[in-house]
This record gives sequence, structure tokens and C-alpha cells, in this order.
Amino acid sequence: MTYKLYYWSGIQGRGEFVRLALEDAGADYIDIAAAPDGDEKLMAFMERRDLLRPPFAPPFLREGDLVIAQTAAILLYLGDRLGLSSRDEAERLWAHQIQLTIADVVGEAHDTHHPIGAHLYYEDQKSEALRRAEHFRELRIPKYLEWFERILARNSKGDAYLVGGAATYADLSLFQLVEGLLYAFPKTTQSVLVKAPRVAALRERIAARGRIRAYLESGRRTEFDEQGIFRHYAELDP
Amino acid sequence: MTYKLYYWSGIQGRGEFVRLALEDAGADYIDIAAAPDGDEKLMAFMERRDLLRPPFAPPFLREGDLVIAQTAAILLYLGDRLGLSSRDEAERLWAHQIQLTIADVVGEAHDTHHPIGAHLYYEDQKSEALRRAEHFRELRIPKYLEWFERILARNSKGDAYLVGGAATYADLSLFQLVEGLLYAFPKTTQSVLVKAPRVAALRERIAARGRIRAYLESGRRTEFDEQGIFRHYAELDP
Repeated sequence: MTYKLYYWSGIQGRGEFVRLALEDAGADYIDIAAAPDGDEKLMAFMERRDLLRPPFAPPFLREGDLVIAQTAAILLYLGDRLGLSSRDEAERLWAHQIQLTIADVVGEAHDTHHPIGAHLYYEDQKSEALRRAEHFRELRIPKYLEWFERILARNSKGDAYLVGGAATYADLSLFQLVEGLLYAFPKTTQSVLVKAPRVAALRERIAARGRIRAYLESGRRTEFDEQGIFRHYAELDP
Repeated sequence: MTYKLYYWSGIQGRGEFVRLALEDAGADYIDIAAAPDGDEKLMAFMERRDLLRPPFAPPFLREGDLVIAQTAAILLYLGDRLGLSSRDEAERLWAHQIQLTIADVVGEAHDTHHPIGAHLYYEDQKSEALRRAEHFRELRIPKYLEWFERILARNSKGDAYLVGGAATYADLSLFQLVEGLLYAFPKTTQSVLVKAPRVAALRERIAARGRIRAYLESGRRTEFDEQGIFRHYAELDP
């Protein structure tokens, strides 16, 4: 069955977490964002009145009649099917918990440049953004990355992966999170990663995986920019 | 097996979503927050160095050796065991998606009074809170409640419950969300609920369930107040 991934075109956003899992597994999928009229297709689908389970927001995945929204729920579903999860229930739940924690960081990273609301431009909430970004840099990035470092160190099957002895979608997502933080907050993130060597090594390990490397080098990956979730504004990472 | 629920004492917070599922099912559980030294127990457990899968934050659930954090992951797990989910995979995923969307609203509700960060008092971020709350009241509460109304209307098994023909943890969580919004933003929420009669009816339906009603009347439920996630500040709902 061909998967269809629906997300906005032109930004990595939350869709990229799903895309990395599909790419790493070599899955057969259609990326709606890559179509010339991708955004129109996405909106038309969401507005279908015969849709029994309409997503609240993208990204969402279609597989036949099944429509799944919410990044972590999509990855929970795909992880089992793409060999990017564990068959052990405790490990499977652990991967999901980690993913949900990554989702929390992603939400906070977004709110550094949009602390008031997504309906306003960054420039219209810049003074608030300066305050929120300071809190994110000084307290949240260290706290989160230290937790990822700790759980890697405590993995009974070695510190190469977050869950068990092989890569799961949670590792792919942590790679993406670190990439995003390095883009948006390079000074802060580099300095925190010095104290989180396992996280830094995991990032390299994931980037070197065959299909991930091929994808990163393919030109198909959207670049980070100031339209997405991870935005670099120099004043927010002085 | 007795469940142990770990959460901060004195506030409903995210722990209440788990508590409602345990109460509705009549589950055998120990509520650590109800112990006189609950917070110390919680912190001592989180700091255990032999913990292979340390939670990032409360709430978390223990069942024997299993430790699960993240409210939506806990409910995904408990839903299957407490008869508060569906055996149908599409419905089970749908309940989880809805729960994750409720978690998004909860995060946004929190950020109305803490738009800069949880490390500062409300009074120290009040001007930002006024702006963020306006956005939440005018755009987000209506958008979310209209979505819940729409998915109830589209449920092929009737509009009494969110998923299938019986109550799931998602219904209990929507009840709690609406209670919280009515406490924090009474004017806005009441006016939006007029246009979301199915959501309003679901709230009444859940409140009337035997064990939920008994719990609400038991005196064991912590009251909403200005320490938790849903806080009422008159200036934020003018």
C-alpha cells in the first residue's frame, strides 16, 4: 500500500519527522507537499465533508481509508510497519514517550518566535520573543538535551540508540530536533551538546545511515528557513 | 496489579486526565499526590539512578516495573486495560489523535498565563499574557471546540461519544478540558459552547456517569485554582 503524506509545502515543519521515517525505511509514499498544487490538495482533503475523522491540522498520513494526524500518532503507527519500533511493549511505549517529549520541545521552539500567536508576524511579537527565547536557551534546551543524554546513558542495550539496540523513529526524530536546534540556536545548542556527547554522536550516526544520507543529499529535503518551526534570528541566540 | 499515579499534589494539572480514567474504571490505584509526602516521593522516584526509563516530567504511571510518562501515552496504555478504548485499530488510533489534540489545547491554555516561561510568576509576564490570552480566546478556543463539535457530528455511531458508540478516555479528557476552560475563561467558553451543543451535552453526559459523579462529589478532587494549568484571571477573560 502506498502511503500519502500531507503537509504544507516549502517548510520542513512537523511533516519532516514523518518524512524521515518514510525515507529511512525506503517506504513507498507520495509526498503531497512535492506536488505543484500540494497545498490546494491538502486543504481540499481536509475540507471534505465525507471525512469521518477530519484531522485538526497537518501533518496527516493516508493509507487507504485510514487517515492519521498528529506526528507522534503517525510515527507510532508507522514505526510498527516500517521496522522502526520495537516488538517489546515496554520499549514500544518508551519510544512513544520519547517522541511525545520531542514534540514538546518542538512546540516550545516554535513559540520562541511566536510566543503570542501564529496569526501575527514575528516582527509583531518580537519583544515577547526575546524574553521567551532567553528562557528557552537558558533553561529548556539544557534540560531537554541533558535528559536525552541521560536516557541514552541508561539504555541497557548500549548508548547508540534511544530504545533497545537498534534505531527507532525516536532516534530519527532526535536527529531532526538537534538539526533544528543547531539551525535556530547554534551558539546555545553547540555549547550544550559539548555536555551531551551521546546526543551529538547519535546525530552523526543517524546522518550516516544509508537512506538518510541519500535523502539529505538528494536536494529533496527542504532547507531550514524563517518560515518553518526552527527559525534563526540572530537576536534570539546572541 | 495496583497502579501508582505520580503527580504533584495540590493541583489537578495533567495528572487529572489520568485520574479521571482510573476513577471511571473503578481501577485499583494509589494516588501519590494524596499522600502527605507525595511530592517528596515523586521527586525521590524521578531521581533514582537505577531507573532505566526516567520520565522527563510528571504525570507518570507505575505498574510493577513499567513506568510510563506523557499523559497521552499513559491513557493509550490504560485505555486498553480499563475498557476505555476500542479494539478496532482505526478507532483506537482516532482516540489517541483526539487525546493528542486535547494535549495541545492544554498546553496553549497553560501558556495564556505563562507565555514567557514557567520559571516566572504570572505577574512577571502579565502584559504578554494579556496578548496571548486574547489570541487564545478569539481564535483558538473557537477553532478547537468547533473541531470537537464537528467530529462528534460525524461519528458514524452517533454523536454521544467521540469514538465509536461508547465512552473512551478521550471523552473523559474532553470533559476535563471543557471544565478547565469554563473555569479559566467562563465568558468565552460559555459563548462558544452555545455553538457546540454536542460538546456541551458530552460534558453533561460524562459528569453523570456513576463513578465520575461519585468522584466529583467525593471531596477527593482538587479544586481548580490559580496554581494549576487552568487559571482564572478576570483580566484574561474580560
